[in-house]
Amino acid sequence: MFNIGNLGNNIINKNKEEISYDLDMKGVNNLRSLAIDMIDKAGSGHPGICLGAASIIYTLFKRHLNINLDDLDFVNRDRFILSAGHGAPLLYSICYMLDLLTLDDIKSLRRINSKTPGHPEYLKTPLVEVTTGPLGQGIAASVGMAIASKHLNQKTDGLIDYYTYVLCGDGELEEGITYEALTLAGTLKLNNLIVLYDSNGVTLDSNLKTSSQEDIKMRFESINFKVIEAENTPKSIDEAISLAKNSEVPSIIIVKTIIGEFSKYAGTNLAHGKVLEKDDLLNVKEKMGLYQTPFTLSSEVKEDFKNTIIERGKLYYKNFEKKYEKSKNKILVDKLIKHEITYNLTDIDISYDNKSLRDLSGDILNHIANNFELLIGGSADVSSSCRTNLVSKKIFQSDSYDGRNLYFGIREHAMAGILNGLALSGLRPFGSTFLTFSDYMRGSIRLSCLMNLGVIYILTHDSFTVGEDGPTHEPVEQLISLEAIPNLKVYRPFDLNELIGSYVAIMEETNPAALILPRESKDISEYTKTSGVKEGMYVVIPNETDDYINLIANGEELGLVLKVSENLKEIGVDNRVLSVPCMKNLTEKTKEKLLEKRSISITFGSPLYYYSLTKDVIGVSTFGQSGTKEELLEYFEFTPKKLESKILELLNK
Amino acid sequence: MFNIGNLGNNIINKNKEEISYDLDMKGVNNLRSLAIDMIDKAGSGHPGICLGAASIIYTLFKRHLNINLDDLDFVNRDRFILSAGHGAPLLYSICYMLDLLTLDDIKSLRRINSKTPGHPEYLKTPLVEVTTGPLGQGIAASVGMAIASKHLNQKTDGLIDYYTYVLCGDGELEEGITYEALTLAGTLKLNNLIVLYDSNGVTLDSNLKTSSQEDIKMRFESINFKVIEAENTPKSIDEAISLAKNSEVPSIIIVKTIIGEFSKYAGTNLAHGKVLEKDDLLNVKEKMGLYQTPFTLSSEVKEDFKNTIIERGKLYYKNFEKKYEKSKNKILVDKLIKHEITYNLTDIDISYDNKSLRDLSGDILNHIANNFELLIGGSADVSSSCRTNLVSKKIFQSDSYDGRNLYFGIREHAMAGILNGLALSGLRPFGSTFLTFSDYMRGSIRLSCLMNLGVIYILTHDSFTVGEDGPTHEPVEQLISLEAIPNLKVYRPFDLNELIGSYVAIMEETNPAALILPRESKDISEYTKTSGVKEGMYVVIPNETDDYINLIANGEELGLVLKVSENLKEIGVDNRVLSVPCMKNLTEKTKEKLLEKRSISITFGSPLYYYSLTKDVIGVSTFGQSGTKEELLEYFEFTPKKLESKILELLNK
Repeated sequence: MFNIGNLGNNIINKNKEEISYDLDMKGVNNLRSLAIDMIDKAGSGHPGICLGAASIIYTLFKRHLNINLDDLDFVNRDRFILSAGHGAPLLYSICYMLDLLTLDDIKSLRRINSKTPGHPEYLKTPLVEVTTGPLGQGIAASVGMAIASKHLNQKTDGLIDYYTYVLCGDGELEEGITYEALTLAGTLKLNNLIVLYDSNGVTLDSNLKTSSQEDIKMRFESINFKVIEAENTPKSIDEAISLAKNSEVPSIIIVKTIIGEFSKYAGTNLAHGKVLEKDDLLNVKEKMGLYQTPFTLSSEVKEDFKNTIIERGKLYYKNFEKKYEKSKNKILVDKLIKHEITYNLTDIDISYDNKSLRDLSGDILNHIANNFELLIGGSADVSSSCRTNLVSKKIFQSDSYDGRNLYFGIREHAMAGILNGLALSGLRPFGSTFLTFSDYMRGSIRLSCLMNLGVIYILTHDSFTVGEDGPTHEPVEQLISLEAIPNLKVYRPFDLNELIGSYVAIMEETNPAALILPRESKDISEYTKTSGVKEGMYVVIPNETDDYINLIANGEELGLVLKVSENLKEIGVDNRVLSVPCMKNLTEKTKEKLLEKRSISITFGSPLYYYSLTKDVIGVSTFGQSGTKEELLEYFEFTPKKLESKILELLNK
Repeated sequence: MFNIGNLGNNIINKNKEEISYDLDMKGVNNLRSLAIDMIDKAGSGHPGICLGAASIIYTLFKRHLNINLDDLDFVNRDRFILSAGHGAPLLYSICYMLDLLTLDDIKSLRRINSKTPGHPEYLKTPLVEVTTGPLGQGIAASVGMAIASKHLNQKTDGLIDYYTYVLCGDGELEEGITYEALTLAGTLKLNNLIVLYDSNGVTLDSNLKTSSQEDIKMRFESINFKVIEAENTPKSIDEAISLAKNSEVPSIIIVKTIIGEFSKYAGTNLAHGKVLEKDDLLNVKEKMGLYQTPFTLSSEVKEDFKNTIIERGKLYYKNFEKKYEKSKNKILVDKLIKHEITYNLTDIDISYDNKSLRDLSGDILNHIANNFELLIGGSADVSSSCRTNLVSKKIFQSDSYDGRNLYFGIREHAMAGILNGLALSGLRPFGSTFLTFSDYMRGSIRLSCLMNLGVIYILTHDSFTVGEDGPTHEPVEQLISLEAIPNLKVYRPFDLNELIGSYVAIMEETNPAALILPRESKDISEYTKTSGVKEGMYVVIPNETDDYINLIANGEELGLVLKVSENLKEIGVDNRVLSVPCMKNLTEKTKEKLLEKRSISITFGSPLYYYSLTKDVIGVSTFGQSGTKEELLEYFEFTPKKLESKILELLNK
């Protein structure tokens, strides 16, 4: 293994290239010492990766990553994703070296309101392209960014052509989401994607081999990656990245590193997540040939590092500008630059034609796609069931990167993670599967919401009315589980009017949205309102007297409730029907105003969904059953007759 | 590809072996025709896999699977898992051939209350070892069963030694959970696991190559599997299984099949999930040389199939009985046979010693493990953080299958799926990770609950008080999301008393449980009650007058509420404090009795968790922040002072 000894002193007999790499090594060690000083000051953090992987990130920034320090949002910048988010101090120290963070900032690691949180958070810190920390998510997002680069390259005649680099550790390659995402990357031949693998052979609990003895090289060859092995030196890493950039398929660079290098716990899991003891900290610095006070940054290192990046970035930027001036696709590029991801859905002209709600959803989605070119998306292999195929668009494949239909395969988790990457690249992505299987992608949905990205989830087959496929395919707890995620707007329209209202709202806003649709309801009402969606809850059928009750529902259930409402009125129980197409749009004020009278909610899912509105909820607290839809409506006592009795029973209590 | 033509007619010049395989082929075709008749009768289902993979399942049952038709629960039976659950009609037809289902049963496919639901459901149908349908889950469960077999083999001196066979399709191998689970299987050298891969090259939406171009052979070699390729004939499959049984590592048998073979849609995704058109159905049968009326079962086929299985099973069972009689470990085996998975935790003697709740949890878990040998489990690489290492037990590794610490690697989803398999094998499994990352395993948790298995999830780091690691590691919506899953008992103890109460309840019961613990609270109260856990909610601090309010909390929050309660009493606001260690244990009656007075709930998570109890909830509706615990308590206004003000504000409204 590489042994650095004292560097930068003896430069006799070295050529220019060697001297330059020697300076890099000095930079790497300075980066390491900054990172461990940060962790020491914070009193918690992960020194292992900071000592082990500093050379990878340093070399990438110094010698390859094209960014524009005058415009960090530069649309064609190369992307770097620290998927192993616990290595955050490395990235923050890089920012400090580039004057993007102050000394105060890096001294405030892990403190509230600082720019240096425990794990990288999107929009909080310069150079952070994506919030990471939950393992594997950064890798999936990076695949999304690589897809976006390929797609935009086609749409801009080659103007957009950035690389995506992602740094990951052993643990991440154990996560299924990375396998899903990278297999897709290999299939799509995303040669603009370069995985930098910090291979230290250790996980938090043990040596890697305790839980994984796979042959990583063979694994990546099997999924169509170029596999490059590098030593843990700037020179070797530099050369490996150059090789990777010229590959015809995505690359992984395996760098054998030592976790917590120079620490007394080097090479063991004890080095992973514990602050270095004081003497060990000094010991580490001494081994690197450093005798600095905390937070020292060598001016020689800084000047070299920053200037090199600025110079290369300027050249890269100028080159882009030249091409931009000649470009025929300025409009699209300008949209990307301005991050215009909303679409004003006023021109919609969809007719009912006795179609199911998911068919109508497909019509609207296609209408949007035909008029708004940033819309791109697909399905985890159920596009035909979710009706999310863009019929006049191609499939995104290695020979048709202009395609806007993404075939994710049966990889729900990676789909959602990739959607995050697409959104972060300025596109407006959607993904579809059955509502039950949203369970598979919650890790990534959470990140859509934490970053507040404009990702659109289209989730169909939304209750036991799925029928014959049985309880594994029948959601019960999913609606409340999604509603509980901060920032996620969950839309559950009843009919075409509310569906249009939902799409209008989704496309006007820029936050994450879940559109929940039934399998096959064709219900329609003349009383529903498109505008009701923005109110969150509204009156569909009014009361006739002052003595009435509220009946509340959304989605397919509303059709049943409308019937029961009529029956109840006939027997003298006055009522009004409220629809809740988007609970998060409901203000406290509207809620109180609408719910003054006795109110009962009705849902085909978990009653927990409605308790924030009403004390009385008629719902489903068990799993579903396999049977015809009619059998199940009977089984769960959701025929008009039985629901009526239940409501009367509640009223007489 | 294999072309069957008319079989069983021309037997001249064939040796006995060939004749026997010819009969198998006749059986395969009969199985196919039964399955498509079922789907035709039901009006929905998946004929593609039934026509494509019949030979695999038929050959396995006829020639290898050791079961005992007189005792389907026979503890050492080989396990067969139909992970591709949409192939259910195949398994049901096998049951019919073995007289385990009636003609009426198979005619009732996908109807309510039938024994033949849309996807296989555990306990509903003979021979169904695990509920499948959500792709990949069956594979993870099968790895759990293979682990259990290896473990019990060690514990019973070789008495238990069953094989686990799992049938999967292309789609499943795209799911990350299968990669996670099978990589672990390869690492652990589970040579009792045999994956039967129905490789038809087609998924629901398209050809497989659209979404996946991985080299499956190389992938499985990279994860330490023996890869065997077989033709789609009984003879070739038979030989492949024999080879696999003698492998030193787990095996995958790749059988190149044709989805919807003989249909006019054969080999395309159109054959996947649509009922065959009438003429196509006849056409398929004709091509197989069958001119039968629906639901015909050849007596020659049935006799051969059933008798062969009975004979082999008898021999296998006798052999087991002989070994059992001589065994020194009858007690353990008897426990497994009687499925005794509860443990009476009366002998517990744990002292507080100023330990954190998760440390105390570790003590109790170790106590149980030392006294109850069916307990086995581990962590998704955070055992040291979750305190779930069984300190006096070995790690389960290929050279120590008697180990009871499972190192799952950073594979949360597979961990949960494997726990299901362990539970289905008669063990009492636990798995641990951080509460936030329960998101990664919801697909499998749902199945624990749907099957009502005694799986124990230990989920620590349960709120923003995690602190420095930031919002990615701070749960908000997870508590309500878990609570919403039917059958899942969610325990959230405050201190040692309630922790013991939780473990007592968990070990007494046989349903799935989630034990939710804070990162580092050391709180303790003399007023909490062990018995309160079973009540669900109980009074910790009583009121002093008749004019009082209820303050409700559980977990770490309760400590804060206890302080505030005191302060409020001092300023004349009488109150009592209720703890809710297990909401699902709360009966409607107790709830009404306890909540007559004005009540306010306090939670560090989503307020949605408490609306079923109280209208007023003080909670957290945004994501967390990175900062010290103290900073965050201030940020979220959960200091005693601020909480007191909020409560007073609510009361004055």
